[in-house]
Amino acid sequence: MDEDKELLEKMKLRILRSFKWKNDVVSPLAIELGITKEEFEKILMDHLDMSSLESLHSTFESARPRCLSKRLHADLRLCWLCDVMEIVTVDEANRIKMSLVKEIIDGKEYEKVLEDGKKQIVDLLSI
Amino acid sequence: MDEDKELLEKMKLRILRSFKWKNDVVSPLAIELGITKEEFEKILMDHLDMSSLESLHSTFESARPRCLSKRLHADLRLCWLCDVMEIVTVDEANRIKMSLVKEIIDGKEYEKVLEDGKKQIVDLLSI
Repeated sequence: MDEDKELLEKMKLRILRSFKWKNDVVSPLAIELGITKEEFEKILMDHLDMSSLESLHSTFESARPRCLSKRLHADLRLCWLCDVMEIVTVDEANRIKMSLVKEIIDGKEYEKVLEDGKKQIVDLLSI
Repeated sequence: MDEDKELLEKMKLRILRSFKWKNDVVSPLAIELGITKEEFEKILMDHLDMSSLESLHSTFESARPRCLSKRLHADLRLCWLCDVMEIVTVDEANRIKMSLVKEIIDGKEYEKVLEDGKKQIVDLLSI
């Protein structure tokens, strides 16, 4: 490998591994895509230049709640219950999702929070 | 139970059980929420009047692809890969999701299609 290229890769890897979201995003994403963390790091380095990698850093804080909320919307089947059937209101859905997102960001396991969210939805619908 | 109420419930149940989407939507939703199909039918009958139940019927065809596409977006982690990191383009994401949605609607199992979708994403990112 060309020396400059090698240096660039080292610098990119340093940025990647310094990310706060390495454990929260990069590693889980690699597992979910069925590839190793190293393979996923290579993908990120190949697709993003230094400044993109750096700027991703700052989007983390706002992107994580949004992506978690969308994931919960899908996993709680709110597309059906809220968007289509309208038996859960948008306000109720947002309230539940926001509280669940907070729990996940505070460190609780996604699957446990999801189960709890399903119970909240059923309770709400059974009133 | 009041006779009128009983009749109304019977008619609502008839509408519900005549739905094409009973097997595709109602039953899976009940399972995912951890309740019986009968409990979920009761929830739907309690929350929706006859005309709402009837009108839901017609939204099925358009709602199902949309909800499946959103669910795939979440499960393929496209919120991160496409919306945040932008290493999968919106066009590529839509192309993959549309073809997967078609496979699911044609009867293929969601989990199998999802696995296939993940491989397509990894292949795309590894070029």
